[in-house]
Amino acid sequence: MTVTALFVGSDQDWDTYAPALIEAFKDLPLSVTLTADHAPETVDYIVMAGSQIIDDFSPFTKCKALLRLWAGVEDIVHNDTITFPICRMVGGGLDQGMVEWVVAHVMRYHVGMDTHIHGQDGVWRNGFVPPLAGDRPVTILGLGALGTACAQALTSLGFPVTGWSRSPKSIDGIRCLSNDVADALQNAQMVVALLPKTPDTENILNAETLAKTAKGAYLLNPGRGPLIDDTALLAALDSGQIAHATLDTFRKEPLPESDPFWAHPHVTVTPHIASATRPKPAARVIADNIQRGEAGLPFVHTVDRTAGY
Amino acid sequence: MTVTALFVGSDQDWDTYAPALIEAFKDLPLSVTLTADHAPETVDYIVMAGSQIIDDFSPFTKCKALLRLWAGVEDIVHNDTITFPICRMVGGGLDQGMVEWVVAHVMRYHVGMDTHIHGQDGVWRNGFVPPLAGDRPVTILGLGALGTACAQALTSLGFPVTGWSRSPKSIDGIRCLSNDVADALQNAQMVVALLPKTPDTENILNAETLAKTAKGAYLLNPGRGPLIDDTALLAALDSGQIAHATLDTFRKEPLPESDPFWAHPHVTVTPHIASATRPKPAARVIADNIQRGEAGLPFVHTVDRTAGY
Repeated sequence: MTVTALFVGSDQDWDTYAPALIEAFKDLPLSVTLTADHAPETVDYIVMAGSQIIDDFSPFTKCKALLRLWAGVEDIVHNDTITFPICRMVGGGLDQGMVEWVVAHVMRYHVGMDTHIHGQDGVWRNGFVPPLAGDRPVTILGLGALGTACAQALTSLGFPVTGWSRSPKSIDGIRCLSNDVADALQNAQMVVALLPKTPDTENILNAETLAKTAKGAYLLNPGRGPLIDDTALLAALDSGQIAHATLDTFRKEPLPESDPFWAHPHVTVTPHIASATRPKPAARVIADNIQRGEAGLPFVHTVDRTAGY
Repeated sequence: MTVTALFVGSDQDWDTYAPALIEAFKDLPLSVTLTADHAPETVDYIVMAGSQIIDDFSPFTKCKALLRLWAGVEDIVHNDTITFPICRMVGGGLDQGMVEWVVAHVMRYHVGMDTHIHGQDGVWRNGFVPPLAGDRPVTILGLGALGTACAQALTSLGFPVTGWSRSPKSIDGIRCLSNDVADALQNAQMVVALLPKTPDTENILNAETLAKTAKGAYLLNPGRGPLIDDTALLAALDSGQIAHATLDTFRKEPLPESDPFWAHPHVTVTPHIASATRPKPAARVIADNIQRGEAGLPFVHTVDRTAGY
């Protein structure tokens, strides 16, 4: 008997994820067919990448679960035509990917590589000698799973890391603070925002707190757009208080083409990629859930439809 | 009694290194004055940064040592007017700096950040999902102190690392090869050249060996310019066999403005900065040697004038 999995996503999503899914399905003791086009009433599982393409799921009469390739489900969780379980992506390379993105951009700023990436004009610019990592204090706002993993990776590379969280934490090798966020930012040359979005964290990086960093600090925001007061950041970039910022999350995404961040010479906009589902590990998570479903076991990572996540 | 140290270097060198030197001298149980202008016959020590500015050292009649801020001494070692010891820089952040430069550029390529650094035109380019580090094989050519330190740092970030050296090595967590270099390059997605320049290593990266990497591999050369057959690399870049290269060392430095590497769209030239002396640790090395000299102890890191290093 063949299990039928319908892939829902863009052509680009198909190109990115389908090969890994097909590969992962081959390793199962089942026959699973993945296609992007199936009669709804024959579909056993929906494997869903991008934003909602299907509004009405009621024709999927025998579907056993919607398996999301991404962590977020806010676009589908309140769709009442989905009468089967929704499973969100957990694992799938999300945490490791975030650590790699943060380490990459911290190192980029640390060694000053933009000067050379942009400066391929024949001028031998060897004047700037960066400090070593040990002389480059990094502050990470947020010490959840992601913030802690990033803090540990940066510590292992030699950076002195301060972490700030609302509730007190204790992590080997990290200076953990939980009182005034301004204290945690004091003299930081590099700031990584990895807090969740809550009423308490909205605009936590504002004119007052951005003034606490070392002059010419670098800012990374792979966390949530609303952590930053955008107007205050633009002013800090203009004054040189913040030398450069790489922003991966925004209040509105995709970031509108007219947004001043795109045009600012001291900002790199990245398109919410810091923590992207990676095809290979994500495909293993999806395949595992199909195997569980076919064996009559409960699915993992199911969404609480009332809570919304 | 005040010890007189003459700083020899460009204005830029002064700005980079003098503050750290003055700071390090303050920590000594001696009074050491650093200036860029002294009557030669009053100079106790020459602290020398850049390339030779003084041809005739014979007026420095009471000078006790020339303390180099850099590792290289090829421009002064054969100057017969230097009748006092020459000490080259050892430590001074050179090794750690190399690790940081290599990790930075490996991570840059790994997460694909150039697309975004160059692509600040309002287009939300979120299609490319890089593999995780565990799926990105890295090959390091050269397992001396620098190559080994880089291999270990990349391993700790999750990359599968193959190291190649002429003499067999065994390093925890690294796949060490010492036979045909082509075997070590097989399927590498990232190649780091950190071999010394010897007749055996010249042009070790040539048409034949560059063809062994994974298609679209990335190449870093912080080692020595002559490790690469430049014509073969340009061909490999044009064909896409090598997707991009960051080159820090060249057969002729500074790299002439007319060199095709400057203009190639898939090359980043960096100006021999991968392993630069860092002001703070280097100043400690210099200060330590002055303290030794004043205490009548032998200097450390003295150059063998006959051997030339």
